[in-house]
Amino acid sequence: MNYRLMLRTLGRTLHVEALCLLLPLVVCVLYGEDPRPFLYTIGLLAGLGLALVRLRCREDFFQREGFVVVGLIWITLSLFGALPFWFSGEFGSFVDCLFEIVSAVTTTGASILTDIESHSRGILFWRSFSSWIGGMGVLIFTLAFLPKVGGRAQVLVQAESTGPVSSKLVPKTAQSSKILYLIYIGMTLAELGALLLAGMPLYDAATTTFATVCTGGFSVMNASMAAYGLPACEIIVIVFMLLCSLNFAVFFLILTGRGRQVLGSDELRCFLGVVAVATLLVFLAVLPSYDSAGRAFLDSLFQVSSIISTSGFATANYDLWPTLARIVLVLVMFVGGCAGSTAGGLKCSRVLLLVRCAWRSLSRVLHPRAVKVVKLDGKAVDEDTLSTLSAFVTLFFLTLGGTCLVVSLDGFSPTTTSASLACLSNIGPGLEMVGPAGNFAAFSTLSKLVLTLAMLVGRLEIFPILILLHPATWRRT
Amino acid sequence: MNYRLMLRTLGRTLHVEALCLLLPLVVCVLYGEDPRPFLYTIGLLAGLGLALVRLRCREDFFQREGFVVVGLIWITLSLFGALPFWFSGEFGSFVDCLFEIVSAVTTTGASILTDIESHSRGILFWRSFSSWIGGMGVLIFTLAFLPKVGGRAQVLVQAESTGPVSSKLVPKTAQSSKILYLIYIGMTLAELGALLLAGMPLYDAATTTFATVCTGGFSVMNASMAAYGLPACEIIVIVFMLLCSLNFAVFFLILTGRGRQVLGSDELRCFLGVVAVATLLVFLAVLPSYDSAGRAFLDSLFQVSSIISTSGFATANYDLWPTLARIVLVLVMFVGGCAGSTAGGLKCSRVLLLVRCAWRSLSRVLHPRAVKVVKLDGKAVDEDTLSTLSAFVTLFFLTLGGTCLVVSLDGFSPTTTSASLACLSNIGPGLEMVGPAGNFAAFSTLSKLVLTLAMLVGRLEIFPILILLHPATWRRT
Repeated sequence: MNYRLMLRTLGRTLHVEALCLLLPLVVCVLYGEDPRPFLYTIGLLAGLGLALVRLRCREDFFQREGFVVVGLIWITLSLFGALPFWFSGEFGSFVDCLFEIVSAVTTTGASILTDIESHSRGILFWRSFSSWIGGMGVLIFTLAFLPKVGGRAQVLVQAESTGPVSSKLVPKTAQSSKILYLIYIGMTLAELGALLLAGMPLYDAATTTFATVCTGGFSVMNASMAAYGLPACEIIVIVFMLLCSLNFAVFFLILTGRGRQVLGSDELRCFLGVVAVATLLVFLAVLPSYDSAGRAFLDSLFQVSSIISTSGFATANYDLWPTLARIVLVLVMFVGGCAGSTAGGLKCSRVLLLVRCAWRSLSRVLHPRAVKVVKLDGKAVDEDTLSTLSAFVTLFFLTLGGTCLVVSLDGFSPTTTSASLACLSNIGPGLEMVGPAGNFAAFSTLSKLVLTLAMLVGRLEIFPILILLHPATWRRT
Repeated sequence: MNYRLMLRTLGRTLHVEALCLLLPLVVCVLYGEDPRPFLYTIGLLAGLGLALVRLRCREDFFQREGFVVVGLIWITLSLFGALPFWFSGEFGSFVDCLFEIVSAVTTTGASILTDIESHSRGILFWRSFSSWIGGMGVLIFTLAFLPKVGGRAQVLVQAESTGPVSSKLVPKTAQSSKILYLIYIGMTLAELGALLLAGMPLYDAATTTFATVCTGGFSVMNASMAAYGLPACEIIVIVFMLLCSLNFAVFFLILTGRGRQVLGSDELRCFLGVVAVATLLVFLAVLPSYDSAGRAFLDSLFQVSSIISTSGFATANYDLWPTLARIVLVLVMFVGGCAGSTAGGLKCSRVLLLVRCAWRSLSRVLHPRAVKVVKLDGKAVDEDTLSTLSAFVTLFFLTLGGTCLVVSLDGFSPTTTSASLACLSNIGPGLEMVGPAGNFAAFSTLSKLVLTLAMLVGRLEIFPILILLHPATWRRT
């Protein structure tokens, strides 16, 4: 392991975080709040970062180091990102601060805050802004690491393979990163503008936009999106939640005039199909309890979009909805958005490939001698990718089971262990105590730590964090 | 499709069922109850069977027909097996009769009876006895069909490969079937004797034995095993529930003096490990609410054994236990017993293989160039088997999700949808309304039918029933 290079990379990351903290610092000063929580943290980050980036080292990195460093970057960013919360004195314990910041940077949106509106504006701004940064990190991570763990952003690969094929990952990533940054920032500006036009105040529009584009779902209001009572804003948020759950390559293709290619994406059609069917089922289930069919439809679409995009915003407390609606939402929690987006969950393409593999096995019984390949977007998916996919799903469910076990120690109802799925899929709210009207404050420190880990495991597509825990990773070679 | 041969096979099955009905008929007469429900059914079966076995046909069967006929045999047996219930007039509707008989022959043990003890003894005897027959059917089915769907009874294959390898499945199956019958009957006689010695009345001992050996779990008492207050009987039932969850090849090996080979079975060790860990966790969770540690331990071991063996007997209402205990039991519900047993669930060997595949994928990230095979009992498992395994698990979870969706239409609590898992894994009781103290009576007709289908899908290792629903199955070739 090239520890020195890993440390230097972490040092650079700390500097980036220090820069990011300048924005909430400005907000804090504008609102006349105490800037010290941010000043202290920025000082610490700058100093420690400076010490680390000065390390001399060889410039060789292997796949193993890559995975390890990704895990460590997320953990380090979280540990230091929690410091403004801690210094503000508005949080009960450092574990609470850590839970909240990991929930932010993993774009989960689960919160231990019991009264959000009582917190200072700078702190809430950092909470939303750090999830926006996390979302950007996820896009880059997805691009660079997903191909190696069998969840490659199919459309993106397709989009890029039209140009000259580059054999090196880094220059390809660097170039693609820029495009992704621009799309992400463009999306942010578009939503911000739309929300302002629809009548939302600037501070709320900015924090809501940050939390939508990254599909995080943090709101600065206790009642989440329901607090504004602006249907236009709800529609805007629905549109951007869904857009940001799509593979970002879709926008790249559209921008470069290859929009027709987008229509051929199996994952996109699967995603839209799931949204449509789930919305219809939820709508039919909740309709009898609504006065207006329009409101019932908007609430159904909003909640389905919020869950499938793994955002976690709410305009209605779905935990009070009929069982059918709740079960539909739970099933949707497993699916999640598209690969190559900021959404979490298993991802549509994975679910689609699993179903196609299962169908192939059924067909094999009927026609044992036929050789069949599983296809995505008309192209054969190799068996190694399918085997890694199956491993991914196994690890997802094992992590889910293990997390449920730890959370159940707290003695809340069995349904409350949905907190595990809400964290692992990076959604935010679950059912009952952790439903849209609840929060994660009542959990024990152990549960909070394990749920924090689950958010990281889910966000980093499971492999990097588990590899940190694999003994062979730390063995000398 | 060779429809005539399929019909003739069904005819023979009807005759076997008619023969089986003679035993409950005798019980019915001995207790002075109305024998007509059984006489009518036996007459119908004999007549229709006679008409079908006289069909002339070619004697060629392909894999597709094999799968189809297995599905049809189970469905036909259930439809006719439900007739004594229906003729007795003790059941509300034919769907209730069908649910109860499918629950029996699939060795599930889920019941729609609200007051079991109010039913006639002949009917309850048929309920328990038909599950015993179902258990025997499952053993034969497992032997003949499992190798084709990637869940082969590893130890059995190992056991048989020491003799001259036969290339034809049928003679091998016929011979192995006899050995399985003998072990199954031996196990039945051993438990019956033990329960009688421990002081249980003959009728109760017989019905309990039938329901234990097939890991079905039907009891003739409302309070299940708790009704007897005989700890010795509880221990006997624990022992036989666990024994019957083992691969039956284990007993074959022991009987033929190859007991040492048994110790090398990965699945056996995994199964015993899960039982030990789950019992310990449940014991620690429930201990504070018990006066006696001994009773707490016995109840923990009994409930864990009952769930992992997918029996469903109860000596305590685990639905009132702490959340940790309930979550442990739910996780165990997914695992189930060993392949080649009468138990349901995903099966230990599948779970073990999934975990090993996942571990391999993690190791591949660390050592991308290393070629690694997944092993079971020291032998490499081929990639086709692993791919079918992955398809099996996907179909299991898809069926589970679909069933939950339908069951949720009834509007009971989300936890009550555990009925789906309880049926698909052939366990019987779930949580809340369908917990050990509850039953399935309150579900709608649609839910009962879908849960009935789930029991069949789970029992027949998913593929045969789904193949019945596959359009290509019924296409002319």
